[in-house]
Amino acid sequence: MDSIENLRRNKPLVHCMTNYVTVNDVANILLACGGSPIMADDISEVEEIVAISNALLINIGTLNERTIKSMIKAGKAANAKNIPVILDPVGAGASALRSNTVKRLTTEVKFAVIKGNMSEVSFIDGLNATVRGVDTSQDDDGFDATVVAKSVANKFNCIVVITGAIDTVSDRLKATKISNGTAEMGKITGTGCMLGAVIGAYIGASGDMFTAAVTAVSAMGISGEIAYDRAKDLGTGSFRVALIDAMSRIDDNTLISLVKAYEA
Amino acid sequence: MDSIENLRRNKPLVHCMTNYVTVNDVANILLACGGSPIMADDISEVEEIVAISNALLINIGTLNERTIKSMIKAGKAANAKNIPVILDPVGAGASALRSNTVKRLTTEVKFAVIKGNMSEVSFIDGLNATVRGVDTSQDDDGFDATVVAKSVANKFNCIVVITGAIDTVSDRLKATKISNGTAEMGKITGTGCMLGAVIGAYIGASGDMFTAAVTAVSAMGISGEIAYDRAKDLGTGSFRVALIDAMSRIDDNTLISLVKAYEA
Amino acid sequence: MDSIENLRRNKPLVHCMTNYVTVNDVANILLACGGSPIMADDISEVEEIVAISNALLINIGTLNERTIKSMIKAGKAANAKNIPVILDPVGAGASALRSNTVKRLTTEVKFAVIKGNMSEVSFIDGLNATVRGVDTSQDDDGFDATVVAKSVANKFNCIVVITGAIDTVSDRLKATKISNGTAEMGKITGTGCMLGAVIGAYIGASGDMFTAAVTAVSAMGISGEIAYDRAKDLGTGSFRVALIDAMSRIDDNTLISLVKAYEA
Repeated sequence: MDSIENLRRNKPLVHCMTNYVTVNDVANILLACGGSPIMADDISEVEEIVAISNALLINIGTLNERTIKSMIKAGKAANAKNIPVILDPVGAGASALRSNTVKRLTTEVKFAVIKGNMSEVSFIDGLNATVRGVDTSQDDDGFDATVVAKSVANKFNCIVVITGAIDTVSDRLKATKISNGTAEMGKITGTGCMLGAVIGAYIGASGDMFTAAVTAVSAMGISGEIAYDRAKDLGTGSFRVALIDAMSRIDDNTLISLVKAYEA
Repeated sequence: MDSIENLRRNKPLVHCMTNYVTVNDVANILLACGGSPIMADDISEVEEIVAISNALLINIGTLNERTIKSMIKAGKAANAKNIPVILDPVGAGASALRSNTVKRLTTEVKFAVIKGNMSEVSFIDGLNATVRGVDTSQDDDGFDATVVAKSVANKFNCIVVITGAIDTVSDRLKATKISNGTAEMGKITGTGCMLGAVIGAYIGASGDMFTAAVTAVSAMGISGEIAYDRAKDLGTGSFRVALIDAMSRIDDNTLISLVKAYEA
Repeated sequence: MDSIENLRRNKPLVHCMTNYVTVNDVANILLACGGSPIMADDISEVEEIVAISNALLINIGTLNERTIKSMIKAGKAANAKNIPVILDPVGAGASALRSNTVKRLTTEVKFAVIKGNMSEVSFIDGLNATVRGVDTSQDDDGFDATVVAKSVANKFNCIVVITGAIDTVSDRLKATKISNGTAEMGKITGTGCMLGAVIGAYIGASGDMFTAAVTAVSAMGISGEIAYDRAKDLGTGSFRVALIDAMSRIDDNTLISLVKAYEA
């Protein structure tokens, strides 16, 4: 596990190119976990902004023709400077634009981490493979998530995070399952986007990317559990507030005592 | 009244083309009421996205040249597939761009529901009618709202919702008044936008559009009352949170016991 | 001090051209303080929208080629109608795009207020001056903030607000320091953007711009203190909610009894 207290000392700057639906939550969870957000998407400035950042998040939630070009440019600039890039391929497979953009991004940019749900990551798995017949409707907490994650990790030489009832973090060789979290996280928008940003913060502050991704996923899931405990009698509006609260107050002891992670 | 529990079972997907000011609230209220949001506005993907949706919301709050084209294209695609489209003509009449866009949208797209305040709907009423001399500064809870709503419903063969201290839902022939809600809803941004989305969810899950619209307006107003009761000693930030909370916990019994609707 | 109750009676309309990260908070704090927000950024409508507004806020947080043009046009239209314009030069100096945009904006538009942190305002100070050797890393609560603020106020004939642990409000001749606020305001996104909007509301409702700016800065800082007192055991999500709450309930007595302002 990485130390959240170390993250807070380092205060990594995460350049977020993300959707306008959950961008405020992304900024606030970044600040809550100890990072610092910067949002910039005009093609003429993304190279300069990414150059001062510790990580770049590319989330295609509300992509458009203009921002796709900026994402490619920022991703390449990050690669040139060895700044890690996280991909959140929101809705990959749901439209040709999303699918083609993910194809183009994964071809032209080297990602440190690809994070998505089983459907999105399976889509990426199929991009440059023979069809594997993965049933995306299958439970994402079983065998398949590990197989798909390792496959994508191998193809793109990166860390893969597949979110679900149980989350999977994998590189080519090993996989860790994390069973923290709560179903309530699916009843507000943005928990997936926020996780992408928190991964960016941990990776921006840490040397080992696998450990950083596992810690980020754990911290997010544990924050969800703490938030649910506080807000369950109130509703999803309060849950969202309590989620940011929990992330802003979590410490290493809480992280270590509540994490439910195991090797797959 | 439609059943909110039925809505939660169906989980209608609502494609939202909406403004960037309140889009997060729109997504969260949709999830709270039992629907599911998807936001997409690039012209090259809106036809595919709307094709997998149960309803399309077009809200012109922060329209621009690019998104207007996407709205027209999405609206036409929805029409071709009999997917209901909801129009929220934010600020119609406040600028030539808004007025012309509303004119173009109502000409090129068939709307299932037009929802706005008295000023916005009166503007639409005047679009293809001789001037009716409607005084938009008049109280919106009296005779005029019903007259304007029926007039617009007749012209565009759709359901019309006029929001105000008392809300009006009308088709060509009949009108229902709903007196739920609280003035506090006007002290946060986005309650109107959220209502448009909730209407989309009910209509996406239901057969009868008039009943769906009445239920959505009632559910929103009742959620406002519950929220105000909880947050009135705190302030408008807490009211916003409590509003999402209330919508996420409302059930059919609450809806039926608290609704204040009557035929106009 | 201006009266917040006067502001609430006047309900000034503030046209906000601002970033998509914190735009919802900007709208809600405006409503909370008693103003009314309108967001519009398409170049074909900004002149009409600004013409019905009491103030214009230009915040370059997520500027792009399209919106920069709209900002210039809106700013000129506001100038032509004597509608006060507030500049929030987010990230000035961090990229050539931001720096050039700030240069162009301050050349082509007359601002009533320029509000930024020490780094941003120092950048503006250097724009049309010989290099002054200001160390932007220096503590912003000391001598330098007053010097920089007066210098920029003199060059652009406007009010300058420099935010920091202690805030500075200055015109060419005098400066007021305000030591309200709490460090927690830096742990959520948007408090700076919100302040820009609140300044817009006070200036839109008031005759004396210096007093209006001082009152806005004080009201924001005091709201932060009240919010921190309520949320400090919860976290930053609750702090954000409590901040809007506090602004929505603050009254003149609270303002006068808690303000910590003094001439510099």
